[in-house]
Amino acid sequence: MQQNELKKNHANYSPLTPIVFIEKAAKIFPDRYSIIHENKYFTWEQTFMRCKQLASSLSQKLAKGNVVGFIASNTPELYEAHFAVPMAGMILNAINYRLDSKTIAYIIDHSNIKMLFVDTEFLQLGKEAVSLSKEKPTIIIIKDEQTFTLETSYPHMDYEEFLGSYDVDFNHYKPLDEWESISINYTSGTTGSPKGVVYHHRGAYLNAMGNSLEWDMKMHPTYLWTLPMFHCNGWCFPWTIAMRAGTNICLRKVTGQNIYEKISSHGVEYLCGAPTVLSFIINTDTNHVKKLLNKVKLMTAAAPPPAKILEQIEKCGV
Amino acid sequence: MQQNELKKNHANYSPLTPIVFIEKAAKIFPDRYSIIHENKYFTWEQTFMRCKQLASSLSQKLAKGNVVGFIASNTPELYEAHFAVPMAGMILNAINYRLDSKTIAYIIDHSNIKMLFVDTEFLQLGKEAVSLSKEKPTIIIIKDEQTFTLETSYPHMDYEEFLGSYDVDFNHYKPLDEWESISINYTSGTTGSPKGVVYHHRGAYLNAMGNSLEWDMKMHPTYLWTLPMFHCNGWCFPWTIAMRAGTNICLRKVTGQNIYEKISSHGVEYLCGAPTVLSFIINTDTNHVKKLLNKVKLMTAAAPPPAKILEQIEKCGV
Repeated sequence: MQQNELKKNHANYSPLTPIVFIEKAAKIFPDRYSIIHENKYFTWEQTFMRCKQLASSLSQKLAKGNVVGFIASNTPELYEAHFAVPMAGMILNAINYRLDSKTIAYIIDHSNIKMLFVDTEFLQLGKEAVSLSKEKPTIIIIKDEQTFTLETSYPHMDYEEFLGSYDVDFNHYKPLDEWESISINYTSGTTGSPKGVVYHHRGAYLNAMGNSLEWDMKMHPTYLWTLPMFHCNGWCFPWTIAMRAGTNICLRKVTGQNIYEKISSHGVEYLCGAPTVLSFIINTDTNHVKKLLNKVKLMTAAAPPPAKILEQIEKCGV
Repeated sequence: MQQNELKKNHANYSPLTPIVFIEKAAKIFPDRYSIIHENKYFTWEQTFMRCKQLASSLSQKLAKGNVVGFIASNTPELYEAHFAVPMAGMILNAINYRLDSKTIAYIIDHSNIKMLFVDTEFLQLGKEAVSLSKEKPTIIIIKDEQTFTLETSYPHMDYEEFLGSYDVDFNHYKPLDEWESISINYTSGTTGSPKGVVYHHRGAYLNAMGNSLEWDMKMHPTYLWTLPMFHCNGWCFPWTIAMRAGTNICLRKVTGQNIYEKISSHGVEYLCGAPTVLSFIINTDTNHVKKLLNKVKLMTAAAPPPAKILEQIEKCGV
């Protein structure tokens, strides 16, 4: 029997896509916590529902293949976007909020962002970027209790209102071809204009699996968001945590004190971050250092941390 | 930016194939034990070398796309075949040795087996099947110490001699297309002639990953071969164990006493099997029951085992 005789028709194959991870988490573990952000608790059923709502609302305003921008912190909204935007057949562009408005305007135009979600903490930056851009995307604001104040006027629709405009009969999109784009991430432009890197559904799915396997991550991990989701889609961990039906602990301000507080109050087991995150932990004021009850696993990347840092972080129980 | 603009040329993609698992295990964990079969111990470096040798020797005799048959027990040779046959660009057909010679002859002809490796325990069966077949594949015998006796005459080349004919300059094959066939498995023909099911490299790779994730399998698992490798390629576990750089504990005769003996002497953590395997464990003569130091995970399939069996197996520490 020859290879070509045995080879099956795979026209009806199931494309690899991380959308299946949230479908499965919501179906099998509907009542498990998906996201905890300060005093807000979401279950996987709720998160999936909110993602379907966002996908539906996006589908009413934009076309498939459009790029949706986010200038946001590690809050539930940006997590939801990692599923909702592809569930609308669109492409997520999570933008680094440390860039200046001119650079962000360049990114808006270069990737043709049609709608831009902006956390109120970065609203001034977002508005400037939009006004400098040619594309002039619609702004939707994320009113997070941590940063939203009534003092400023906000002539923009907010995220929750936008979610509310969903169609109950909406069926979310899944790619027909696993090589379809899921997201685009830009470099910070240190050596010229920022360069965009496109991720496809297949790559996101496989990398999410690889994260879990490489890290020996157990089912239902408790994961702390110290790595920005705008940074290479948080190394694909938004998708990994859904695949393992884990709990995402959000964190707006990455400080040593906040990290210790979250680890001890939620029993965090995993976190990622650049070497600076290790320094934050090591240099935490001793008044705020808490005894960690469980061993914490930290994944770091970029320049290798010096041996001394690695030695000190181990002493912290990480 | 539209979907089709973003979509990258993926002509140079890396096809998914379990061959990468053994390459990685041999490169990163060369000195870890790959296979333990009674008093024979192999490391991942050795196993990879033996697979390359077998692939090279096969390539000298057969063409790419040819089907290679095995009538063998769960010994190192059949494990090696799961990598070596695809590393020669060929397709593995691991045959159920409980079938009769006529049925095996049918399978030989239906899948055009060109070369048949037979453990001496099943040599009579293999010879009969070959004589009944039209294809009349060359027999190579596996002389395992457990079953090989000098009493019988063996006018066939044996596995180790065959391995010895390898070419040192051989470069092993990797698929150019992940949908290429890797193996073919036949049903036992209870409702007619046996039917063949073809596995592709992509499916083998993804299923091997899924096994590990679904079971929360840690790196370097110690896995006991109670499920026959001829049964749906041991549910893809030959590939899973290489991916996790684990240790395969071989087992020719699946009895309660043997299972207890292997678990306690090698610290086995994982095993698979039909519900009958559970019964073997539960009904082991009390003289042979050993206290298990670690919790053992068992994956079962087919008809769901009765609640009583599940309750009893838990009491055994599984």
